[in-house]
Amino acid sequence: MTSSAGRHMAAEIAEQPAVLARLAVEAGPQLAEVGRVIAARRPRFVLLAARGTSDHAALYAKYLVEVRLGLPAGLVSPSTMTVYGARPALRDVLFLAVSQSGGSPDLIDSLAVARGCGAITVAVTNNPDSDLSRAAELSIDLRAGVEHAVAATKSYTAELLALYLLLMPLAAGGPDSRQLAEQGAAVSEAARDTLGRSAAVREVAAQYADADRVLTTARGFGYPTAREAALKLMETCYLGAQAFSGADLLHGPMAMVGAGLPVLAVATPGAGGRAMLAVLERLQQRQPALVVVGGLPGLPGSPPVLSVSTDGLPEELFPVVEILPLQQLSYQLALLRGADPDAPRGLAKVTRTW
Amino acid sequence: MTSSAGRHMAAEIAEQPAVLARLAVEAGPQLAEVGRVIAARRPRFVLLAARGTSDHAALYAKYLVEVRLGLPAGLVSPSTMTVYGARPALRDVLFLAVSQSGGSPDLIDSLAVARGCGAITVAVTNNPDSDLSRAAELSIDLRAGVEHAVAATKSYTAELLALYLLLMPLAAGGPDSRQLAEQGAAVSEAARDTLGRSAAVREVAAQYADADRVLTTARGFGYPTAREAALKLMETCYLGAQAFSGADLLHGPMAMVGAGLPVLAVATPGAGGRAMLAVLERLQQRQPALVVVGGLPGLPGSPPVLSVSTDGLPEELFPVVEILPLQQLSYQLALLRGADPDAPRGLAKVTRTW
Repeated sequence: MTSSAGRHMAAEIAEQPAVLARLAVEAGPQLAEVGRVIAARRPRFVLLAARGTSDHAALYAKYLVEVRLGLPAGLVSPSTMTVYGARPALRDVLFLAVSQSGGSPDLIDSLAVARGCGAITVAVTNNPDSDLSRAAELSIDLRAGVEHAVAATKSYTAELLALYLLLMPLAAGGPDSRQLAEQGAAVSEAARDTLGRSAAVREVAAQYADADRVLTTARGFGYPTAREAALKLMETCYLGAQAFSGADLLHGPMAMVGAGLPVLAVATPGAGGRAMLAVLERLQQRQPALVVVGGLPGLPGSPPVLSVSTDGLPEELFPVVEILPLQQLSYQLALLRGADPDAPRGLAKVTRTW
Repeated sequence: MTSSAGRHMAAEIAEQPAVLARLAVEAGPQLAEVGRVIAARRPRFVLLAARGTSDHAALYAKYLVEVRLGLPAGLVSPSTMTVYGARPALRDVLFLAVSQSGGSPDLIDSLAVARGCGAITVAVTNNPDSDLSRAAELSIDLRAGVEHAVAATKSYTAELLALYLLLMPLAAGGPDSRQLAEQGAAVSEAARDTLGRSAAVREVAAQYADADRVLTTARGFGYPTAREAALKLMETCYLGAQAFSGADLLHGPMAMVGAGLPVLAVATPGAGGRAMLAVLERLQQRQPALVVVGGLPGLPGSPPVLSVSTDGLPEELFPVVEILPLQQLSYQLALLRGADPDAPRGLAKVTRTW
């Protein structure tokens, strides 16, 4: 490890408030126009396609679609089209592909098949010249700037905000353009505030420095954060990190939670966080090394908390700030363990799968 | 641990050939009738709802629906309805809930909401008197007999076969009733043959006896097997077991695969198995303690193989036999590690989540 280990990841984590603010302002017209085209076509189902970190942004979009748009949604298994040659009937279907690079062949092929099968296709990428953007009928540019670290950070929060700004105006009673601009400014400020609370993150990193495994858990809009945090910890720290929805955790995996197992739970005041209270009570009986991201009042056993700022934000935007201390934790923990979070072993920035 | 540890799980694993044969014969008329009702309503989208082991049967059904029925499909996040109160538009939607007990409140509530929102609702359970079966318009009885072990085995393979027998006749060019009866008999025989190959399983159990973590991986129809194997190993052996689709593994988690990490890959001759070859080549570079379930020819590095019988079976039925050596491995490994696979710590047979 060199002394410059992790400098890209650190810089890109710190850049997020600016990236979010720029996205909300500069991408506004493009997001509004794509939203109008989608609304006019009145989709009845939504399919989401992505891999890796972007898959967690897609999962976030699935919750938005189901909860706020009131439409059924599914995460695509690209292999059904690329390995098995499926050609599904996709009239009235919105097919949203999310990818930082826009370069993974299986996503490009799946989107092309979906377009050929009648879907409205939208690519959300950080590269408007990518093959994925070109293959799609409509596309959104994240404008996050080049991402050098292999472990994605700023492209992830940009994906979350772009999906929110794209989809929420389609909801009955959803925010109007003035409200969206205010929310974009508020989430950028909340991100800046949250990133400033890193002293608590360093304490948790020290606590987990020798861990081999970690478990992450959340419910509802917080669940994509649990999944993304686990991936970051796998990529940068080589930890055996496992994410479970709070409900799924009770259906089996709870058995492997022994005393002292590091557990990161996301529970911020909101419906998803409140639904975690019963899960946290069950968890605490097994005496894990629990840390809670958020700061829901009334947590059983008063665990250490990584607090986040949610000032002026609706619950749907909490995921943009909840992931930030977990990105910082992945970075801190990687350095403590002698790994370089900019260049994890065995990974390249653009992963090509078929 | 008493000397009777695991006796229920052992008995229920061994019972599977008989359960599969009974299901194919006795449930045939019910499956055909439910299939006719579904076909007449011409669903355009399929939602699947389940928790725990049954969630892996639901994932299997998602592949069947996407690949063979050519319909878009999604796995339901029950919290969208139970925590966030979503009331989605579900006209033309088939909503399939899968549950051994039929007793989990969030599944019952989700299915009731889906029915109220216009979906065709079907419950697949091992208890026709369950609240889930009563809440559904249509229901399928697995006829697997009482399952005593907390770690589900026979109810899982029964769910897989029931979903196959229900859904495949809806596929263009799908099997007719005579072919289905033949396939039911063939899968029962293949299961019996596969369960007889347990000497190799004991060797792998001895090899993995001191493991703390294990990774499972597969693609396509094999992927639900990787997920279910990981859950079994978590429940019975308290291992940190993580499942990845072969493609997702390359997008990040590969970084945590160090030399000697136990990895169980499913690769049986078929499109999904062949798509694993490139993944296994990448994996072998990291020198894990790899064991392959299936027996695809040309495996890089000649790893140990847990072979399965697939005589007379279409690839869609491979999952019914592929899980069997992994159930046996969970059982053997639990006993070696001094745990009782019939009654994992912290779990009850019916998990109630909201």
